[in-house]
Amino acid sequence: MNQMRILDIKQSIYENNDQQADLLRQMLKDRKTFLLNLMSSPGSGKTTTLTQTINQLKNELKIGVMEADIDSDVDARKISETGVSVIQLHTGGMCHLDADMTKQGLSGLGIDELDLAILENVGNLVCPAEFDTGSSKNAMILSIPEGDDKPLKYPLMFSIADVLLINKIDVLPYFDFDLEACKDRAKKLNPNIKIIPICAKTGEGISEFADWIRKEVSEWNRY
Amino acid sequence: MNQMRILDIKQSIYENNDQQADLLRQMLKDRKTFLLNLMSSPGSGKTTTLTQTINQLKNELKIGVMEADIDSDVDARKISETGVSVIQLHTGGMCHLDADMTKQGLSGLGIDELDLAILENVGNLVCPAEFDTGSSKNAMILSIPEGDDKPLKYPLMFSIADVLLINKIDVLPYFDFDLEACKDRAKKLNPNIKIIPICAKTGEGISEFADWIRKEVSEWNRY
Repeated sequence: MNQMRILDIKQSIYENNDQQADLLRQMLKDRKTFLLNLMSSPGSGKTTTLTQTINQLKNELKIGVMEADIDSDVDARKISETGVSVIQLHTGGMCHLDADMTKQGLSGLGIDELDLAILENVGNLVCPAEFDTGSSKNAMILSIPEGDDKPLKYPLMFSIADVLLINKIDVLPYFDFDLEACKDRAKKLNPNIKIIPICAKTGEGISEFADWIRKEVSEWNRY
Repeated sequence: MNQMRILDIKQSIYENNDQQADLLRQMLKDRKTFLLNLMSSPGSGKTTTLTQTINQLKNELKIGVMEADIDSDVDARKISETGVSVIQLHTGGMCHLDADMTKQGLSGLGIDELDLAILENVGNLVCPAEFDTGSSKNAMILSIPEGDDKPLKYPLMFSIADVLLINKIDVLPYFDFDLEACKDRAKKLNPNIKIIPICAKTGEGISEFADWIRKEVSEWNRY
């Protein structure tokens, strides 16, 4: 099941991304595949978080991962060590993925038997928030070193995320980061957002994130 | 001289950004104003670095700062405490600034008597690298918590930067970050890039960055 390939994504030809996203979401629902779109700044710990989370879920869910990057295959190599299917998507300089690009990635990955497809979006706190990928749910990571003011400066990302992982909680003592203020700012933008402090390096908080995914996958397949 | 205003930037109407950038650069050269474009991921320490650098230079150079953000005026407020002119540019969701948007910002800031204009670009390691702002030189920050693999994943940004500040060097012991490997990766993309490790919080390395700016401003006004 361990696969590692590279796919060059083509720019979308569709004008109406929201429509394409809805079509993709319905197709995924029909096939009982849950698509999680994971977004964050560069270097906030998306890949390490995924590795830990996959290791908690891979024995109960069939998982496939799309690693989107401008260049390199560093992340896909790391994910492939978990043993799940993975494909590296090269965006050709594009700063985000839209629904059609995600669909190209899913075709490359192959979703026929997947319960959970994960898109690790391009590291960027701005553009990916503006394009519906067709995902079932959106997750985002903010890491402690980035600062507690990020919800004020990148409000759209925090508004469209269903779950916010606050990563690198182990280095909280070394940074001026007000965890409660950050949570309040995120909740003000998005009262329903679920917030989970984690440390992807040590695994702290990952069980709670894995539980959230289990619940969401189960609800996705219920209706 | 302390001013803090907010300007809503309009999207560019020009098709040829490179041409607009060259025109702006020539105009700035004629007026003997050096424009520094500072780029990085969200939360890598642009504003703190600028505050420290401005404090070292403000008695010898007339400085004005443009703070570009999707939303909020947090950064402009911090910069205004240094006493230099500052304007907050709201990009209306745009993930970068191009030459025309920069020109709008400079008009709002007023550059008649400025030796050094600084643009703090939108926090984003992808899009700002793709658009020439008309700057005299480009500076970028990579912070230790972001990881030493960033030159592999965001090569364009490292290719167009004249100087790379490696920030948060004080937390190096707490992260898996290979400083020499990171420098080698950046130099491989851009052999002429100047690399300065700094800690904006404590001021370490800021004198070397200030010296680099002094030299560049002096050369800008020589020819």
